[in-house]
Amino acid sequence: MDDETFQHASLDELRADRSRGASELARRSLELLATFARECRAADSRQLAAKLDEFAAALAATRPSMAPLQTLTRRWRSELTSTRSRALADAREHAATRAQALVTRSVRAVEEAAVRASALVGEGDTLITHSLSSTVLALFRHLARRGIRVIVTESRPLREGTSLARRLSELGIRVDYITDAQVGAFIARANLAMVGADSVLGDGAVVNKAGTYLLALAAQDQGLPFYVCCESFKVTSSLATEITLEEKDPTELGAPQLPHVTVHNVYFDITPARLVRAWITEEGLTATPPRAA
Amino acid sequence: MDDETFQHASLDELRADRSRGASELARRSLELLATFARECRAADSRQLAAKLDEFAAALAATRPSMAPLQTLTRRWRSELTSTRSRALADAREHAATRAQALVTRSVRAVEEAAVRASALVGEGDTLITHSLSSTVLALFRHLARRGIRVIVTESRPLREGTSLARRLSELGIRVDYITDAQVGAFIARANLAMVGADSVLGDGAVVNKAGTYLLALAAQDQGLPFYVCCESFKVTSSLATEITLEEKDPTELGAPQLPHVTVHNVYFDITPARLVRAWITEEGLTATPPRAA
Repeated sequence: MDDETFQHASLDELRADRSRGASELARRSLELLATFARECRAADSRQLAAKLDEFAAALAATRPSMAPLQTLTRRWRSELTSTRSRALADAREHAATRAQALVTRSVRAVEEAAVRASALVGEGDTLITHSLSSTVLALFRHLARRGIRVIVTESRPLREGTSLARRLSELGIRVDYITDAQVGAFIARANLAMVGADSVLGDGAVVNKAGTYLLALAAQDQGLPFYVCCESFKVTSSLATEITLEEKDPTELGAPQLPHVTVHNVYFDITPARLVRAWITEEGLTATPPRAA
Repeated sequence: MDDETFQHASLDELRADRSRGASELARRSLELLATFARECRAADSRQLAAKLDEFAAALAATRPSMAPLQTLTRRWRSELTSTRSRALADAREHAATRAQALVTRSVRAVEEAAVRASALVGEGDTLITHSLSSTVLALFRHLARRGIRVIVTESRPLREGTSLARRLSELGIRVDYITDAQVGAFIARANLAMVGADSVLGDGAVVNKAGTYLLALAAQDQGLPFYVCCESFKVTSSLATEITLEEKDPTELGAPQLPHVTVHNVYFDITPARLVRAWITEEGLTATPPRAA
């Protein structure tokens, strides 16, 4: 595969992905960058550095609502300042190794955040969540033997709630599966609400799958704590006014095409920090918004 | 068709109906009662009265979350106290005529409530609603020439939002069609939220399609007024603790069947009165809960 074909295929893969969350896609980007660093054509390390920089920026731009994609590729680029001064083979290896080290760090961060979050959950508690977060799934793995119940929302349009229900079922965790619209009818059965995040903004607001803001409002109205659990790579200094909420293909809704009717498929919403009881990252739990790394 | 067959078919029809709202089903019940009053077997007016009473009670019990079914059949029964003292043919005609008069009254009440609600909507306003209410649809007919926009929710599981979008499209009204989960992402684009009701409880709480409570919370959080518009036959003296929220066939969700996973299909939720800016019935707009007739 020539460089251009590889790059296009990579960008298309990231843009089209609807099943992996922000952390997983960020790590996938780093893996693609590692492969590209090892295999792309480059006359010297100077040209390599330029190509890697450009490709990293393009990968980050595919999913503007997903902070870790921005944070991890930026971090990686900042670690490559010495690329130009290395011999080509060494520069390739260094870039690939740094990318893989960041993947490992992200995986560990998710796991540690999940362990910290597990301290908030008691024996027999009922949790409610929304969408499918790999971090929250890691948490549920830790809780499998605590006799918990989980209220899982369908999460339209693509219903990743069905995947979450399947994984929890495999873990032997009892699940109450509901439509997104039933959150208000079921919230009072839960002890706490726990979600992941695509991004945590500079003021602590949480960008996550559309429907998260409604869950947070329902939790507040019923006096339930609403927690956000994610790796710190998801924390950005951007504010709501500076970010783009991704709008995806409206045909995913399966709605009829009608005159005067515009079908919308905004993937994310923003939950204001005032609705968040605490943010949990690998660095710990904070009742005030975490700072961008 | 013998009496028993007719009664069973009627009860099944009401239980199974997922497309008509509470007012329409209440009126349908009255029409079935009128037919039954004219055609059922009865030796005398005393036996007729007993059969009508029993059938009316059975019809009302099919949809416990729908107040007008209770209110209108109760009202009708109370108007039939003279049945026993009439000649059989006269008693039949009286019962049928009273049922039809209540149908007409309910239709007019819905229309008048819609006219009163229309006073709240300005030229070019954007309204957000949830589910398909025949009263709110009547309101939209009045607003068709005011250049309004309507944000329509899908309303899972059976997506009656698609029917509403189709009807609004036919009226030439611009529609933004969203999933139930996108309410939080779109609420700020609306000027006001307007819903119908299956019941208004004694304390003003609103029983309506699951998802209504979330819409009301989002409206409150964004400072939007949340209005409920319905005929006064929907107002009951019952409280939330006294009513049953209907749970329907979980297969309507199309969720996978998995061990440890319980799929729920609770059709209604309860929006507390504190989230309602005003209640609008054919009798007018009130900022305090309307009283049961």
